[in-house]
Amino acid sequence: MSSLLRQSHKLALRLSSARSMASVAADRPLRVGIVGAGRIGQVHAQGVQRTSAVVHCIQLPARASEPDRAEKIAKTYGIPNWTNDASEVLSHPEIDVVLICSPTDKHAEQIIEAAENKKHIFCEKPVDLSLEVVNKAIKATEDAGVKLMIGFNRRFDANFARVKQAIDRDEIGKVNMVRITSRDPGPPPVSYIKSSGGLFCDMTIHDFDMARFLVGDEVDEVYAMAQSVNPDIAAAGDIDTAVILLKFRNGVICYIENSREAAYGYDQRVEALGSKGSVACDNKHSNQVVISTNESVRRDLPLHFFLERYMDAYVAEMEAFIRVCTTEGASVPVGGNDGREALLLALAANKSLAENRPVKVDELRASF
Amino acid sequence: MSSLLRQSHKLALRLSSARSMASVAADRPLRVGIVGAGRIGQVHAQGVQRTSAVVHCIQLPARASEPDRAEKIAKTYGIPNWTNDASEVLSHPEIDVVLICSPTDKHAEQIIEAAENKKHIFCEKPVDLSLEVVNKAIKATEDAGVKLMIGFNRRFDANFARVKQAIDRDEIGKVNMVRITSRDPGPPPVSYIKSSGGLFCDMTIHDFDMARFLVGDEVDEVYAMAQSVNPDIAAAGDIDTAVILLKFRNGVICYIENSREAAYGYDQRVEALGSKGSVACDNKHSNQVVISTNESVRRDLPLHFFLERYMDAYVAEMEAFIRVCTTEGASVPVGGNDGREALLLALAANKSLAENRPVKVDELRASF
Amino acid sequence: MSSLLRQSHKLALRLSSARSMASVAADRPLRVGIVGAGRIGQVHAQGVQRTSAVVHCIQLPARASEPDRAEKIAKTYGIPNWTNDASEVLSHPEIDVVLICSPTDKHAEQIIEAAENKKHIFCEKPVDLSLEVVNKAIKATEDAGVKLMIGFNRRFDANFARVKQAIDRDEIGKVNMVRITSRDPGPPPVSYIKSSGGLFCDMTIHDFDMARFLVGDEVDEVYAMAQSVNPDIAAAGDIDTAVILLKFRNGVICYIENSREAAYGYDQRVEALGSKGSVACDNKHSNQVVISTNESVRRDLPLHFFLERYMDAYVAEMEAFIRVCTTEGASVPVGGNDGREALLLALAANKSLAENRPVKVDELRASF
Amino acid sequence: MSSLLRQSHKLALRLSSARSMASVAADRPLRVGIVGAGRIGQVHAQGVQRTSAVVHCIQLPARASEPDRAEKIAKTYGIPNWTNDASEVLSHPEIDVVLICSPTDKHAEQIIEAAENKKHIFCEKPVDLSLEVVNKAIKATEDAGVKLMIGFNRRFDANFARVKQAIDRDEIGKVNMVRITSRDPGPPPVSYIKSSGGLFCDMTIHDFDMARFLVGDEVDEVYAMAQSVNPDIAAAGDIDTAVILLKFRNGVICYIENSREAAYGYDQRVEALGSKGSVACDNKHSNQVVISTNESVRRDLPLHFFLERYMDAYVAEMEAFIRVCTTEGASVPVGGNDGREALLLALAANKSLAENRPVKVDELRASF
Repeated sequence: MSSLLRQSHKLALRLSSARSMASVAADRPLRVGIVGAGRIGQVHAQGVQRTSAVVHCIQLPARASEPDRAEKIAKTYGIPNWTNDASEVLSHPEIDVVLICSPTDKHAEQIIEAAENKKHIFCEKPVDLSLEVVNKAIKATEDAGVKLMIGFNRRFDANFARVKQAIDRDEIGKVNMVRITSRDPGPPPVSYIKSSGGLFCDMTIHDFDMARFLVGDEVDEVYAMAQSVNPDIAAAGDIDTAVILLKFRNGVICYIENSREAAYGYDQRVEALGSKGSVACDNKHSNQVVISTNESVRRDLPLHFFLERYMDAYVAEMEAFIRVCTTEGASVPVGGNDGREALLLALAANKSLAENRPVKVDELRASF
Repeated sequence: MSSLLRQSHKLALRLSSARSMASVAADRPLRVGIVGAGRIGQVHAQGVQRTSAVVHCIQLPARASEPDRAEKIAKTYGIPNWTNDASEVLSHPEIDVVLICSPTDKHAEQIIEAAENKKHIFCEKPVDLSLEVVNKAIKATEDAGVKLMIGFNRRFDANFARVKQAIDRDEIGKVNMVRITSRDPGPPPVSYIKSSGGLFCDMTIHDFDMARFLVGDEVDEVYAMAQSVNPDIAAAGDIDTAVILLKFRNGVICYIENSREAAYGYDQRVEALGSKGSVACDNKHSNQVVISTNESVRRDLPLHFFLERYMDAYVAEMEAFIRVCTTEGASVPVGGNDGREALLLALAANKSLAENRPVKVDELRASF
Repeated sequence: MSSLLRQSHKLALRLSSARSMASVAADRPLRVGIVGAGRIGQVHAQGVQRTSAVVHCIQLPARASEPDRAEKIAKTYGIPNWTNDASEVLSHPEIDVVLICSPTDKHAEQIIEAAENKKHIFCEKPVDLSLEVVNKAIKATEDAGVKLMIGFNRRFDANFARVKQAIDRDEIGKVNMVRITSRDPGPPPVSYIKSSGGLFCDMTIHDFDMARFLVGDEVDEVYAMAQSVNPDIAAAGDIDTAVILLKFRNGVICYIENSREAAYGYDQRVEALGSKGSVACDNKHSNQVVISTNESVRRDLPLHFFLERYMDAYVAEMEAFIRVCTTEGASVPVGGNDGREALLLALAANKSLAENRPVKVDELRASF
Repeated sequence: MSSLLRQSHKLALRLSSARSMASVAADRPLRVGIVGAGRIGQVHAQGVQRTSAVVHCIQLPARASEPDRAEKIAKTYGIPNWTNDASEVLSHPEIDVVLICSPTDKHAEQIIEAAENKKHIFCEKPVDLSLEVVNKAIKATEDAGVKLMIGFNRRFDANFARVKQAIDRDEIGKVNMVRITSRDPGPPPVSYIKSSGGLFCDMTIHDFDMARFLVGDEVDEVYAMAQSVNPDIAAAGDIDTAVILLKFRNGVICYIENSREAAYGYDQRVEALGSKGSVACDNKHSNQVVISTNESVRRDLPLHFFLERYMDAYVAEMEAFIRVCTTEGASVPVGGNDGREALLLALAANKSLAENRPVKVDELRASF
């Protein structure tokens, strides 16, 4: 236990000794460990701070050029402990639950290690790009009896949650069609694209989850049409502009539109058509100001950056996770199976695109 | 010339004898003959009245139960002449141009007859459900040197025309994706469905034309996914809910969403995403009034009926037709080829649905 | 009868001889005579053409420089007769009803002449700038038993009519406050300003009528605050920017905001706050298109010109007038008293501004 | 020092001894003391937590029925110290700056006490209902050389700040007219009304500040028109529905509309008309979801509660205060003079209403 739990200069915490989660004293906050302190790890650090829980330790691998970056981040967010070693977080007895915010290729092994150490787990999406690996990770959590929540944050967004509520409350009757518009303000670096697993696994996976969330059923068949507008993305073998059709088992048709480049910003809308009407959400803007001149009636752009757009959703997501972890018998709102099904849809979309034909999801399911 | 040109009680017109259209005296209004005086024929009668032209005669077949219905309609719209016989309109020397508003199965033969009589022709969509027949009709107009305009009225709608203008003016850069939402407020009678040629030929055909209009290119490949929500429509062998993907030759992806039943009314929107931004249009409402109570912030429904929604477009369309007919060398904004290409897309969508695979438009083109 | 009823080259009308309006044959259209063929007279000429009535004759004084301008306008609108002499229209037996669209200083005498000739009268606002003269004109119509409708066209606008309907249907409960925003896109020429009677009589008079229309009561007290932003308007002794407060007898507070110059166009909105909520209307736009770029989310300007903005209202107004004139016992929706009360409010606002104090409307009423 | 600084169970803070604020070590957070822990005091406690400062102590008078309520609130917000005695907060050497969130009648004396103890001060609005008392309090801060910021939180709201920015950036040219709409979702208890100082001092005071903020000048003359819709408020001698006109020295006209009861929620909008256009803001909603059925196109109500509506503004306000307190030579964005001028306008509006005449602000200024 060399690197872990160097005490902060601000807080001298007396830590209790190892115990199972069931024994978390009701009178102290749940202690969260964060593995990976990149952009999304830091977002969750802030999210936890708005819940009843506390971030107890944060991990970030050291770099030769920056050996103390875990410490720096810990200090920025007032986190009392830090380490370079993920295993210390995943196994330490003073930590109740872990957030896995490391690169995708580490997710599955870290889920397994955390499960073995009886930690409840929140893991960023996707769990892995291999269905086999995902299945193994899920099985580990089931065997260990720990909770596994997957970071499909958009389910916790006020707009999408209200759309879901409208459906659940029968405000629009039986749903027949769902449209998801999901456009990024600009493409990531080509280096990122190359290791992203492709548009469908990296970006559309959120939309696949949204489709399943709103429709409340599984997909039977997938067809994808795409192009690469950006020549660098094309050269990297990926696409940046796509429409994906999903035929659900219950007959509902869902279509997802993706673009890596919407000049006006982050565009995140859904619309559902039901027998009694429709529900749709528009983008969020930082203000409701309209300026009218002799040229146009205009307003400022929608929120541009996903962290700004979804900050409230990240907080709500973390609140849900903490609530589930502190409530006996509560089940997670987005579980391992949700992670697996969204991946299946991404893989089916990849296959559809490669073979230019509609692909049954069961074709992929059968191969595992 | 028994039935034609019974003079109205109001106007004693001295009609000139037969002459070619080129000789239409600049000092008298263009004389329009209307074949078919159903709903759409009457709409065009009103449209012509807002142009510089006049409706000279209207035709409607007599019914045993209502032998004088042509006369009734003529009087309602102040049209001086009426007849039960389409050929009288199509061939009469006092008539300069004809509007063909009869049932679809009459369109082609009436186009051919009008062409032989050297009338410029406006014909409602679709020209015919057979590509071969459409080709023959188009050829007849070409051989006769008369103009043929097809009634894709939506091109003349202020919203869609403004979207097109935004594209043409480079307000959104190079177009990469187009979305068309086209929902009817409710299904037509099943009897109509049965003779309609199916959703794609009857309803989507407008959207296929809109796609070509906005993208400005031809479609390479079509894929359609559909369902029948309404059991009566299913029983009639048709669909009522569909998404159709179009891959244009220039790479643009267009997706069209159709529903026969939107509880809130007629829903007609398009959106285009380009390299510099997007352009989108919302529905038209009869007023801009918002009522806020302790329950909701609400407004009245969008315009419900297509005639109400598109009345201004019908007038603009008719103005365009009259302008073209009275301008030496002017070419129609929507020609026979546009009618043919839209039909090709409908047939490709039918094939895609039947065979559940993407269909190249050239597959169909090749078969003629 | 020298100049009147030169027959048009198109129509050879056999006119019946003089008769009272009650004898208007149900089987021929009501014949309308228009006095004054300026901008608004021409608007009404078009409005009548969309009703069941016909414009029978239009009058416009000859100018030395343009002796045939009445004829030119008549031909433009297909009106069969024209004259330079208003009296010919006001007295001719073949004309059933008259529209008085002449300059304001002619209105009252022409109303009186038309009334003496037993014509129903539509008169543009304001009837006159003198309350005494207005009273005389109204009395003449009452004595003659003819109908007098005042051209407060905005009551017939789809937005304002819907606001009124929301109030009448109790959608917002008991009304407590009304706001009227009324801004012109730009000031008229100073020459017009000088003879306009001032902002309150020329422009706000519409808003005073709207206030009475929406509140459904009479005003007790008026207070006005104003400034002259435009130095030319200031030099002409008028104001261009004002807020006028109205305290109604029933306690409702209404505030009207006026500006002669809104760079973005014609701005016409009302809002009412009631015990159960609010109703508000936004401006009308020529399309519902939104363009989003990396600079803004924008739409085109609202309808800029009052004729464009209110064309539908003018038509609806004329339909209402024709309906009233052709319906036994029907009373006009906007009568002489409405014209008088709106004028009273304008005069009270003038007095309030001159003396910088709240003015009781009864102060002015008492002085007549 | 009996009650103050009972150490929390969580933090063992080593507090430095008394020192001037200039000596606040850059390496420790600014320590904030809060006087008054009612609703708004608690809001600011949360606001401070999102800044770099910490709440060091919170004060709330003990009640016989609830002797430990200061402690309870301190624990809720993780504040290490609490007391029942305001003076302990205002004078304690370990506290750098104070937030005065007590009832209005305590504000002035507490400002004076804090100033004597060399604390920078944030005080909720209004400073006092007596101009004389306000002047004394301001003088005390000037004499002591401490900063005094007044809690006009709306200046920090994203919408109003953007409106101000549009004006400052000359996006709408020279401002000529400003409209402020400010409606509460429902009246406070009559008991509150009675001690509130009346609508203008209690509610409109925010709008008076907004008017001065946006126009950037002082008011010359005030006229108010009002009514009491709610009979209980009338019985309490207050009004609940009002329009207040402000004529600024630079000619700008501002009109403020207030209602204590808007059934649909908290309604907070401003609009400014300038020589180049207008800027306006609409209300904030919790989501951007629209539901369309066969009855209406509707969305959820605007944010209903002022804490929800303005939470972000409160945080931004507190950030601004902390920033000013930690920046040598920085001046507060909303100072004592702003508090005084807003009060003057409220008093002028009271006088205008009482005497039903326009009131020059200098009339009131002169009387002190």
